[in-house]
Amino acid sequence: MKVLVDLCIVPLGVGISLSPYIAACEKILIDAGLKVALHSYGTNIEGNWDEVFAAIKRCHQALHEMGSPRITTTIKLGTRTDRYQTMEDKVNSVREKM
Amino acid sequence: MKVLVDLCIVPLGVGISLSPYIAACEKILIDAGLKVALHSYGTNIEGNWDEVFAAIKRCHQALHEMGSPRITTTIKLGTRTDRYQTMEDKVNSVREKM
Amino acid sequence: MKVLVDLCIVPLGVGISLSPYIAACEKILIDAGLKVALHSYGTNIEGNWDEVFAAIKRCHQALHEMGSPRITTTIKLGTRTDRYQTMEDKVNSVREKM
Amino acid sequence: MKVLVDLCIVPLGVGISLSPYIAACEKILIDAGLKVALHSYGTNIEGNWDEVFAAIKRCHQALHEMGSPRITTTIKLGTRTDRYQTMEDKVNSVREKM
Repeated sequence: MKVLVDLCIVPLGVGISLSPYIAACEKILIDAGLKVALHSYGTNIEGNWDEVFAAIKRCHQALHEMGSPRITTTIKLGTRTDRYQTMEDKVNSVREKM
Repeated sequence: MKVLVDLCIVPLGVGISLSPYIAACEKILIDAGLKVALHSYGTNIEGNWDEVFAAIKRCHQALHEMGSPRITTTIKLGTRTDRYQTMEDKVNSVREKM
Repeated sequence: MKVLVDLCIVPLGVGISLSPYIAACEKILIDAGLKVALHSYGTNIEGNWDEVFAAIKRCHQALHEMGSPRITTTIKLGTRTDRYQTMEDKVNSVREKM
Repeated sequence: MKVLVDLCIVPLGVGISLSPYIAACEKILIDAGLKVALHSYGTNIEGNWDEVFAAIKRCHQALHEMGSPRITTTIKLGTRTDRYQTMEDKVNSVREKM
């Protein structure tokens, strides 16, 4: 099952500069062979369900190892059975209507 | 790794009465042996990471089988390494301060 | 316009014990005359759009005044024009189907 | 108070092709003079709190007028008092660390 995800990981207890932690997660997602697109409030991910969620789990494990004792994450995820739609398809579909 | 999740699954293309779909997901989560608490905008889930996300995947599969061609889900999830905190602990901790 | 909201406010830079901040927000929401229900990963709120979002803004202002230099919040919100549905209606509607 | 928002509006009861509705919201946000950046699972918005949430309210009103009887929306929003950070700042800050 293909899934499109929007991932926003927030490590707590490490101050307010979170970019080193987000960068570590980006590397994990890319190393997992997933298609990713960073934006200003999260990261879009495209891939197979099991691989995507295995990588998100590794992100949590990595941030705990980097010193964050508590992590709160927000995920949006979409699946569909009618047709395959890439990240670019979704954006283009909106742009065409504007 | 223990995880606390807030799950909100929204099947599309099935009209605006979503409760039969949410009820089906509740059953899947309960049958998985997970601790769940339904609220007005989602379901809190407490369990081990792998079991929780396997059950959420089954929810998506079940709603597609029930006729929804597209599903969009929002998940909040928390992990912590400092101590174990149940769903009730979190609520009680806030109530004590009020 | 009536709105049902699920609010999860996360103050950063104040360590990992967030309950004093959540308790402060609960008081603000209750003092605003809103109907609220605390759960393990947020607070359900029922009220008029303008009043609900004015209260959420006051929560952000209050947590900054309490010492948090950065806040990240997740909100789910629902509006509908077909009929009026309370927080209890939504939960009961699911429970009936289980 | 400046706010960075990630907005994902989902109209229900209008089938599964949502792009005409998202396009209508994009126009509302742009007409409001807000800085916006569309991505594959939402729209990043940068602006003043009151203007941003007034525009989001207009989006809900517009989608109801376009025929959707029910809307569920997910919003992430961040405020900070330590320094001003644009949408680009956030992305660049992560990229520098990669």
